[in-house]
Amino acid sequence: MRNAGKTEILYGIHPVFEALKAGRRTFFEIYCAKDKIPKRLGKVAAFADSLNIPVKKVNNTRLESITGTGQHQGIGALVSPYPLTRIDDIVGNVKSAAADYFLLLLDNVIDPHNLGALLRTSLGVGVGVIVITKDRSALPTPTVSKASAGALEHVRLVRVTNMVNTIKDLKGKGLWIVGLDIAAQQSIFFSDLTGSVAIVIGGEAKGIRPLVKKHCDILMSIPQTGRINSLNASVAGAVVMYEAFRQRSLQKKI
Amino acid sequence: MRNAGKTEILYGIHPVFEALKAGRRTFFEIYCAKDKIPKRLGKVAAFADSLNIPVKKVNNTRLESITGTGQHQGIGALVSPYPLTRIDDIVGNVKSAAADYFLLLLDNVIDPHNLGALLRTSLGVGVGVIVITKDRSALPTPTVSKASAGALEHVRLVRVTNMVNTIKDLKGKGLWIVGLDIAAQQSIFFSDLTGSVAIVIGGEAKGIRPLVKKHCDILMSIPQTGRINSLNASVAGAVVMYEAFRQRSLQKKI
Repeated sequence: MRNAGKTEILYGIHPVFEALKAGRRTFFEIYCAKDKIPKRLGKVAAFADSLNIPVKKVNNTRLESITGTGQHQGIGALVSPYPLTRIDDIVGNVKSAAADYFLLLLDNVIDPHNLGALLRTSLGVGVGVIVITKDRSALPTPTVSKASAGALEHVRLVRVTNMVNTIKDLKGKGLWIVGLDIAAQQSIFFSDLTGSVAIVIGGEAKGIRPLVKKHCDILMSIPQTGRINSLNASVAGAVVMYEAFRQRSLQKKI
Repeated sequence: MRNAGKTEILYGIHPVFEALKAGRRTFFEIYCAKDKIPKRLGKVAAFADSLNIPVKKVNNTRLESITGTGQHQGIGALVSPYPLTRIDDIVGNVKSAAADYFLLLLDNVIDPHNLGALLRTSLGVGVGVIVITKDRSALPTPTVSKASAGALEHVRLVRVTNMVNTIKDLKGKGLWIVGLDIAAQQSIFFSDLTGSVAIVIGGEAKGIRPLVKKHCDILMSIPQTGRINSLNASVAGAVVMYEAFRQRSLQKKI
């Protein structure tokens, strides 16, 4: 695990519970609201207890000060940093892979709430790996874990320095690179999104950067009828991921 | 128009511009930032000017005080309240309708940002009418207009006292009522969402209320692979609306 020695404070019932279940972070201590213990919170505390993780009862003011937010839902946890993954450890050559790859590449998605929502949907449709850039991207912080309802704790997230190099690398491995672009003629609904694919989604402000766009195998758009010309980044991502999921499910006949 | 005599303050470039274009609200005055006029803002001001709407230059502090928010993007507008519609004015009997109806019924969606996102997607897929409940629902406020990127100004929104009675009424008119329910066996991807349909989406906390659920013709779920068992309300709504849109587009062969 990288960043060994550093710690961070997770907060919220879902992030703490999902991180416990995922078992990928080290838990040093859990802080639980003294005053009111809702049923769901008791379940998390009992689970932590079964794993021999110390659970400390603190009052609400102290919990707000520990977590740095009022959104803690009665729970916080001192944990090791988010376990990032390297792409080479999880994506090999398509020809020798046991199953099709399904990746999401996020080019400059900077809003933590959009990143959280995209991770949550990714987990729901079985996207195995999500790639973000080191610069101009939301980081896998506790805020993102909260916004993802804890999905961050289960997905495999990769941070890369150069998205173009990553795309070249994935192409070399045999993946098909699909960019979502509002100006593209090709509709996602009339495109093949099965097989080993990586879907590229651009940031909130300007979409995919030109050089990244240039390296995609194909650009597709989400059809729209209305007068307003763009979907929210997390909604656009959900629509294309679900269309891919639908096609992939049909192929498997499940 | 109901609520005649009352006014409200729209804020943000999209809400003000889209409301001007939609032409459904009366504009009494527009407040524009004195200091910096970005290009997009100048376009809105020029359009307002062409419609003979007074545009007043104010400083940033004054604009924040008028709009009651720091999210004004340099523009505010004193306008008539949101023009609600009555269902009988826009939905007749299916048999005599020129085209298929496509409605969205929101049962206790209380977060204004979720409502805004759902309205934005509705406009993108051609949902003609959105029904909300009078109680326990976000209202069509300026905050919702902002969250919808101005889509609120174009869609037709109906507020009803009793969702069950509305469903009975729509059934009587020949519409097919589809409820989105996480526990349903039937997948949206293996269901017919063409024809005259109303899709019911439940609130953030508990989904569709039991009595409303009971009156749906069919319940469907969005398939998920992951361990975390629910999608964000606005994402779930977007996925089912886009699946309906996809099926309806195929049918029309466009």
